[in-house]
Amino acid sequence: MTALIDGPRLTARLRDLAAIGATAGGGVHRPAYSDDDLKAREVVRGWMREIGMTVRVDTAGNTFARLEGNDPTLPPIVIGSHTDTVPDGGRYDGALGVLAALEVARTLGVSAQPLRHPLEVVDFQNEEGGIVGSKAVVGRLDAAELSRTAVSGFTLSEGIKRLGGNPDRLGDCVLAPGSRAAYVELHIEQGRVLERGAIDIGIVEGIVGIWYWEVTFDGVASHAGTTPMPDRHDALLAAARFIDSVHAVVTSIPGRHVGTVGRLAIHPGAPNVIPGRVVVTLELRDLVGSTVERLYGTIEARAAQIARDTGTSVQFRPTTHTVPAPTHACVRDAIEQVACGLSLSTTLLPSGAGHDAQQMTVVCPSGMLFVPSVEGLSHAPRELTKDQDCINGANVLLGVVRRLDDLD
Amino acid sequence: MTALIDGPRLTARLRDLAAIGATAGGGVHRPAYSDDDLKAREVVRGWMREIGMTVRVDTAGNTFARLEGNDPTLPPIVIGSHTDTVPDGGRYDGALGVLAALEVARTLGVSAQPLRHPLEVVDFQNEEGGIVGSKAVVGRLDAAELSRTAVSGFTLSEGIKRLGGNPDRLGDCVLAPGSRAAYVELHIEQGRVLERGAIDIGIVEGIVGIWYWEVTFDGVASHAGTTPMPDRHDALLAAARFIDSVHAVVTSIPGRHVGTVGRLAIHPGAPNVIPGRVVVTLELRDLVGSTVERLYGTIEARAAQIARDTGTSVQFRPTTHTVPAPTHACVRDAIEQVACGLSLSTTLLPSGAGHDAQQMTVVCPSGMLFVPSVEGLSHAPRELTKDQDCINGANVLLGVVRRLDDLD
Repeated sequence: MTALIDGPRLTARLRDLAAIGATAGGGVHRPAYSDDDLKAREVVRGWMREIGMTVRVDTAGNTFARLEGNDPTLPPIVIGSHTDTVPDGGRYDGALGVLAALEVARTLGVSAQPLRHPLEVVDFQNEEGGIVGSKAVVGRLDAAELSRTAVSGFTLSEGIKRLGGNPDRLGDCVLAPGSRAAYVELHIEQGRVLERGAIDIGIVEGIVGIWYWEVTFDGVASHAGTTPMPDRHDALLAAARFIDSVHAVVTSIPGRHVGTVGRLAIHPGAPNVIPGRVVVTLELRDLVGSTVERLYGTIEARAAQIARDTGTSVQFRPTTHTVPAPTHACVRDAIEQVACGLSLSTTLLPSGAGHDAQQMTVVCPSGMLFVPSVEGLSHAPRELTKDQDCINGANVLLGVVRRLDDLD
Repeated sequence: MTALIDGPRLTARLRDLAAIGATAGGGVHRPAYSDDDLKAREVVRGWMREIGMTVRVDTAGNTFARLEGNDPTLPPIVIGSHTDTVPDGGRYDGALGVLAALEVARTLGVSAQPLRHPLEVVDFQNEEGGIVGSKAVVGRLDAAELSRTAVSGFTLSEGIKRLGGNPDRLGDCVLAPGSRAAYVELHIEQGRVLERGAIDIGIVEGIVGIWYWEVTFDGVASHAGTTPMPDRHDALLAAARFIDSVHAVVTSIPGRHVGTVGRLAIHPGAPNVIPGRVVVTLELRDLVGSTVERLYGTIEARAAQIARDTGTSVQFRPTTHTVPAPTHACVRDAIEQVACGLSLSTTLLPSGAGHDAQQMTVVCPSGMLFVPSVEGLSHAPRELTKDQDCINGANVLLGVVRRLDDLD
C-alpha cells in the first residue's frame, strides 16, 4: 500500500486558491489574463517551488513544474489542469486538477519510493477561453487566433505576454509526440452521472468531439395583421420546427450524444412582424464522429423538408469543429485498478465538456478521471465537490501515476 | 353622374408629399414629430387653405380642415387619414387617405352641388406610433402615455407641442359621440387580397382587435456538453413547440384570424448552454373577440402540456389589447353602391392592421375602403399602389361622401 496524499492540506489549498478572485456569492472570478489569474498562477508556482520542483513558464504562458525521477532518460509523466475560471465561476473546475497534481508531486517527492520517470505538473493557461494553452503545446494555436480578445479584455497575444510567455515564439512550447510518457487529468464531472449513481470515480472514455453549425432560415418579413396565415413565409415557425426536430432526431437513437440549439437571432424581431430571418446555432457532441455524421444527415434532411413545408429556405454553415479525443486504455485501466484497490466505485463515461486532456492525446497516452459534482452544477458559484471526493480523486491520481511509472 | 376628382393632380400631390423625408431607396422617412413630419403637415395645411378650407390644429396636434355645407346645423362628415410614416416607409400608407380627402374637398368646393353637411378633412398625428392622434380625439390617450418616447426621439408630450397642440389640455380635442355625421378613410390594403383577386376596392368589414401576451418558459440553464438529453429542462425546446402549436391552433379553424410569434428572447443565449428561459410574444387578431378567446384557451392548454412534457413552466402575461372595431353598415353599403356605379369591383375584407378609423367608430358611423397594394408590400420603400387605383379610391370616397350626405 502506497502512502496517500494529505487530504486536509489539499482541501485547505483549494480554499486558499479560491480566495483569489473570490466573488460576493461564493464564486471565483479569474478569467484568463486578469490580474487575479496572474496572481493565482504565481501562488501555485510558489507552492511548486516549496516542494522542490523546477518551475518554468513556456512561451505560451503555461506553467510546468518538474520533479526529477530516478531515470533521467525516461520522458516525464504529466499531470495537471488549469487555474483560470469562467466569469463568476466555481472553486473546483480546473483548480482541483492542479492542486491535486501538486499534492501528488509533494507526496512522491517525500516518498521512500520515488518514480522512475520525471513528473511534470502543468497549469495550462486559458482553458475556459478555448483550451488555449494546451492547444499551443500541440501546435494547434493559430497565429490568427492571437488577436482574439479574451473575456478579461486582453487579446490572447497580450495575455500570453502578461503570463510571461512570448507569442512570437509559440513554436518553442510545442511538445513533440512521444516526448511525454503520459498525461492524466483529474477534474470535476460537471454533470450528474456520478452523483446520481453514487459512484466515486468516473473513468473518462474520451472527450467528445463538438460540431457547430449556424443554421439560417430565410422567409419573408411581413405585417402580422395584413398577411393571412396561408400567405406567410414565417422563418420563426420554420426554426421552431427545426429545434423540435433536432431534439427528436438526437433522442431517436440510444447513446450519450447530445444536440443543442442554444442561441437564436430573429429579424426583425417585433411582436407585430412575421419573422423574415432566423439564425440558430446547432451543436452536436459525441465520442464517435460517425454518429454525429448520421445525426447531422437526418437533421439536414428534416430541415430541408421543414423549409419546403413553411415556404422558407434553409442554409447550414459549419463553424468550428473539434474531433473526438478517446482516452488511452492504459490510463483507463490504471484508474480502474487503482480505484478498485482503494475500494472506490467507478464507471466509464464520456466527457461532454472540452478539456486540456483532449489536446494532450496527440502527445502521449492520456486520460482523465472525474469526481462527483453536487447537483451537476459547474461554471457557477454554487459549484461543489465534497472534500472526500476531492481527496479520493487525488489519491487515485497518485496511484495512477505510480502504476503508469511501472508500465515501461 | 357627379364630377370626378382630378386624377393627375392627386398623383402629383402624392409625389410632392413623398419628396418630404424622401430616402435614398425611394422610401419616405417621416416618423411622427420629426422635422419632416412637421414640414409635411404644414404643406398639407397650405393645400387645405388654398381650396378655401378653415384649418385648425387641435390640442392633440391633429390637423382638421373644414369646408362649410349648406346646412350649418348638421354635424360634419369627416374624411382623412395620417401623413406620418414608419422609419423608411412608403409613399402611400396614410398619405393617400389625406390627399384623396383633400381632392374630394376641392372637387366638392367647386361643385355646383355642394354638400348639406360640413366636410372635415383630418390629418391625424402619429398613427404609426400607436394611432395616437385618433386615440386622443376619443379621449383614450392616457396621460401616462405622454411620457413615452416616439421613434423620432421626442416624447408624445414634446411631439404634441411641436405640432402646435397642448398636452395639458387634451380634453379639449375630444369629439363627443354624435358630434360627427360619419368618418370614412381611404387606405392602401397592405395585403394581397385585392391584388390576388384583381379587385378594385376593398370594403372593410372592421378593424380587427389585437390581443398581446408575453409568454415565458422557464427551464434550467445548463452545460450543453455535460447534461444528457433526458436530464434537460430546455426552455427553447418548449418555446419551439409552443410556436409550432400556435400555428397549428390558429390554422385549425377556418377564418381570417391570425396568430403571430414575432419576438423571442433567450437566456443565456450561448451556443453551448441549454437555454434556461425563453420569452416570446404572442399576438392574436380577429374581428370577433370570442374567436380569439377560443383560440387562446386552446393555446394556453397546449402550452401547459408542452411545459409538462419538457420539464419547464410557462406563464402568460397579457400586455396590450385593442377591441375589434366593426365598420358601420351605412358606410359599407355606400362604398359598395358607389363602386358599383363606377364599374369597380369590390370585396369585403377585415383590416388586419390598426387604423385611425377604429377609434372614430365610437364618435360616429365609420368605415374604410382599401385599394390594392402591389405585392401586398407596405411599411417599406417599395410600397406601391398604382395611380389608377389611387384615383379609383378617391373617386369612390367622393361618391361615398355624397351618398352619406343624402342619408339624413
